[in-house]
Amino acid sequence: MIETFPNPNPERDFQIESVCPEFTNVCPMTGQPDFATITVTYVPDELCMELKSLKLYLWSYRDKGAYHERVTNQIASDIIKALDPRRLTVTGSFNVRGGISTVVTVTHVK
Amino acid sequence: MIETFPNPNPERDFQIESVCPEFTNVCPMTGQPDFATITVTYVPDELCMELKSLKLYLWSYRDKGAYHERVTNQIASDIIKALDPRRLTVTGSFNVRGGISTVVTVTHVK
Amino acid sequence: MIETFPNPNPERDFQIESVCPEFTNVCPMTGQPDFATITVTYVPDELCMELKSLKLYLWSYRDKGAYHERVTNQIASDIIKALDPRRLTVTGSFNVRGGISTVVTVTHVK
Amino acid sequence: MIETFPNPNPERDFQIESVCPEFTNVCPMTGQPDFATITVTYVPDELCMELKSLKLYLWSYRDKGAYHERVTNQIASDIIKALDPRRLTVTGSFNVRGGISTVVTVTHVK
Amino acid sequence: MIETFPNPNPERDFQIESVCPEFTNVCPMTGQPDFATITVTYVPDELCMELKSLKLYLWSYRDKGAYHERVTNQIASDIIKALDPRRLTVTGSFNVRGGISTVVTVTHVK
Amino acid sequence: MIETFPNPNPERDFQIESVCPEFTNVCPMTGQPDFATITVTYVPDELCMELKSLKLYLWSYRDKGAYHERVTNQIASDIIKALDPRRLTVTGSFNVRGGISTVVTVTHVK
Amino acid sequence: MIETFPNPNPERDFQIESVCPEFTNVCPMTGQPDFATITVTYVPDELCMELKSLKLYLWSYRDKGAYHERVTNQIASDIIKALDPRRLTVTGSFNVRGGISTVVTVTHVK
Amino acid sequence: MIETFPNPNPERDFQIESVCPEFTNVCPMTGQPDFATITVTYVPDELCMELKSLKLYLWSYRDKGAYHERVTNQIASDIIKALDPRRLTVTGSFNVRGGISTVVTVTHVK
Amino acid sequence: MIETFPNPNPERDFQIESVCPEFTNVCPMTGQPDFATITVTYVPDELCMELKSLKLYLWSYRDKGAYHERVTNQIASDIIKALDPRRLTVTGSFNVRGGISTVVTVTHVK
Amino acid sequence: MIETFPNPNPERDFQIESVCPEFTNVCPMTGQPDFATITVTYVPDELCMELKSLKLYLWSYRDKGAYHERVTNQIASDIIKALDPRRLTVTGSFNVRGGISTVVTVTHVK
Repeated sequence: MIETFPNPNPERDFQIESVCPEFTNVCPMTGQPDFATITVTYVPDELCMELKSLKLYLWSYRDKGAYHERVTNQIASDIIKALDPRRLTVTGSFNVRGGISTVVTVTHVK
Repeated sequence: MIETFPNPNPERDFQIESVCPEFTNVCPMTGQPDFATITVTYVPDELCMELKSLKLYLWSYRDKGAYHERVTNQIASDIIKALDPRRLTVTGSFNVRGGISTVVTVTHVK
Repeated sequence: MIETFPNPNPERDFQIESVCPEFTNVCPMTGQPDFATITVTYVPDELCMELKSLKLYLWSYRDKGAYHERVTNQIASDIIKALDPRRLTVTGSFNVRGGISTVVTVTHVK
Repeated sequence: MIETFPNPNPERDFQIESVCPEFTNVCPMTGQPDFATITVTYVPDELCMELKSLKLYLWSYRDKGAYHERVTNQIASDIIKALDPRRLTVTGSFNVRGGISTVVTVTHVK
Repeated sequence: MIETFPNPNPERDFQIESVCPEFTNVCPMTGQPDFATITVTYVPDELCMELKSLKLYLWSYRDKGAYHERVTNQIASDIIKALDPRRLTVTGSFNVRGGISTVVTVTHVK
Repeated sequence: MIETFPNPNPERDFQIESVCPEFTNVCPMTGQPDFATITVTYVPDELCMELKSLKLYLWSYRDKGAYHERVTNQIASDIIKALDPRRLTVTGSFNVRGGISTVVTVTHVK
Repeated sequence: MIETFPNPNPERDFQIESVCPEFTNVCPMTGQPDFATITVTYVPDELCMELKSLKLYLWSYRDKGAYHERVTNQIASDIIKALDPRRLTVTGSFNVRGGISTVVTVTHVK
Repeated sequence: MIETFPNPNPERDFQIESVCPEFTNVCPMTGQPDFATITVTYVPDELCMELKSLKLYLWSYRDKGAYHERVTNQIASDIIKALDPRRLTVTGSFNVRGGISTVVTVTHVK
Repeated sequence: MIETFPNPNPERDFQIESVCPEFTNVCPMTGQPDFATITVTYVPDELCMELKSLKLYLWSYRDKGAYHERVTNQIASDIIKALDPRRLTVTGSFNVRGGISTVVTVTHVK
Repeated sequence: MIETFPNPNPERDFQIESVCPEFTNVCPMTGQPDFATITVTYVPDELCMELKSLKLYLWSYRDKGAYHERVTNQIASDIIKALDPRRLTVTGSFNVRGGISTVVTVTHVK
């Protein structure tokens, strides 16, 4: 679902960071909604990520159940598959549950 | 008491940070309550930490007496024993006592 | 349990505000700890509130069960009984539970 | 759907403010998710609002379509119907859309 | 250019505040771009302001020249003409020029 | 030295606030530079204040000696003389000297 | 000890606020140092307060013992005696002791 | 269009950072305005960048269409061509669109 | 004067940071009080620092005269002598004097 | 003009940072005042910088014209000449001009 367009400056390493504070999915244990800010930071190789498709991709989790650790890894894996970036970091910063807030950070280097 | 579940992505180093601002125990010298924010940051190996059990584990200190240095080290040791993580940092940030606030930071690398 | 001392300047209306960020009690429904910041603001009449006794009074809730609304009203009633102040506001600002934080504010005028 | 319990201190005017930063519904025009922080502030009369039922009530909007103005008024009307409070303010603070963020504030006095 | 829709709750006074941090026009004296945050706060009577048309209306200033005082008054007058609101405040908060930042506030009551 | 232009909307009370964080003059007692933020807030009657002339007017204090109280009153008096505004507030917020920071506020109503 | 100079603009009500974050005295009960920010806000009548003498006056408390309530009232009384201001507010904001911070506010109108 | 002047201290590596929060261009897909803060950080070699020409250069984008990635790279390339700096970083921090904010960072070393 | 207790976990490098915002001494040149925040950060070897004795040790400077540079070095030397820590940083962050604030940082590695 | 005193602890590397938010000079192109915060951070060798002389040295720029780049380098050169420090960083953070703020950072190692 993540769409791409050709990197306009592949001769140069540059970084793109997108912050998406409107991520929500469902806790697979309790069925209750979870809320998170997802941050995607990457250095493109041949392909850049089209932002509108990122928005739609993140919306697709709205009714899915997944634990914090798995969903952050899944987002990273799907971006790697779509873009094959030179470097990638995906961060999922999840709201307080049971008095505890949690941040999951996945890093990938080509 | 700290429960675990299998790391869903052991092939990759990723980091999980949990912030728990509701830690309280008792000062062994004065019998007065102490309050702290406990932050646990780790890179899982085979096992991840189940968050509800972390909450219950931290509650178990509510009536125990322990100095700042010892309690932060004890939390780190108990997590290492339960998870055997690749890397771990436990931070205990204790409220002002006698005009002085104190932060204890314990780091472990497998 | 709240101790007092004579108002040193009863000829004048003046205000005393004490902020206590280390309040904790137990949820009567779930048995889980609740955490709050209690703020007491008052204009003394004949008596001022001794601060150390306020600290001990708030600690006395540590193992008691009470809902947010009732505990904030109870603190106000106990201070009114002990001091009979000209004006009083008690605010209980409780930490997030189920994604919702709650502030209860009780005001009294003699 | 909003459940209540008897006001423990109806002899006194006191205020309860609940902040719910995890509200989401769907834009009826575009089908896209909207996100908001809902703040409910009220002075109870005979009845207080049970917080868990408020959480479930706000979740019930997750798949519904409604404009900012209507949804904030609807929440106010449903709370008035359930609690008949002495005073009520409901605020819906909606995230940026098209470069514009919007806050709707509904006030009711018995 | 400002479009409207019928107030869904005209029986009640409620307030709508829209913050638009992306306003730009041109200084009529120097030809240089000016930047401002425009905030529109109103209590609707029969009509509410359609937000997309507000966005397009504010864009229409992009190439126009106008002083801070006049442009803020003009926005207020155009909204009054379109909505005839019960109350209205328009604030234009303009970026630093010559070491001075300026905020213009126009208020109207029906 | 303060120049004016005709109020474009004299039929309406509206407010203009200009914040000037780059005010400096000289302490008449010690000869040392003082630094302040001057804020001018007014409701114009027939005349508005031209901003570039305000900048030049405030620069004219750069080498003058004056106490905090007097200089803030002098700025207010000069603006009243030039504009005859419906309402005016001038605030001078002076940097720390001897461990004490000082804010002088002068208000005038026509 | 508080010195004065003639109000340069007695024909006008204006306000002077001085913030002194470096106040320290000694707790009469424990002998331990207390620390506070003292804020003095007044509308002068015939006399203004000379700032250097305020600094020296506040230093004079460094080795004195006094409770929060009394010391704030004493500062107010001494300023009233020296200046006879039209209005006065003295605020003493004292650092955390026993987990509780305290603000005392004394107001006087001529 | 970017003008230069001789580096006054070429014998030394020093860094110049200019922050320009007033950048706007047009989205080539939707025709809608985009807004960004552009930050240029560089170590000059023989030439420094004249700031007024940077302002005019950034204004020249006002009516141009370009994607976030391309425009940030283009600014970097134009500065490299004009100054040939020892090191350069250009950051474009673009406002929220579709709930996502984006920062593009281009780095160059001579 | 700095008292110690045996490091409960000498097998592990861990860090203890204590922040003391209530330091005051006297300027040896002017006799005027100086105010600072002292931060002590160390990795203990065989001994940890007892916090109450740190409080009393810092109070002992209350009537002593010392320049910023010397007093920060003296605190570091006294802690090294008492604890012989593996690593130590002492920071003295002194309040504004003559419009300048100063931070002195002393670092020691065993 | 920068005066010095012997380093009390030359056997140890320690760092002194002085922040001076009250720097002003004149733009050589427009004759208009510029305002900056100057930060001097250094590790002393044989000599420390006397702070009152730094204050007077920075005041000496009040009527001088100089570009941002040159004045920051000049301050660094004068400090190097006076102190010959082991390490030095001088930062000049200049206020917004033409919508652009600029920070110049000069670093020197002995």
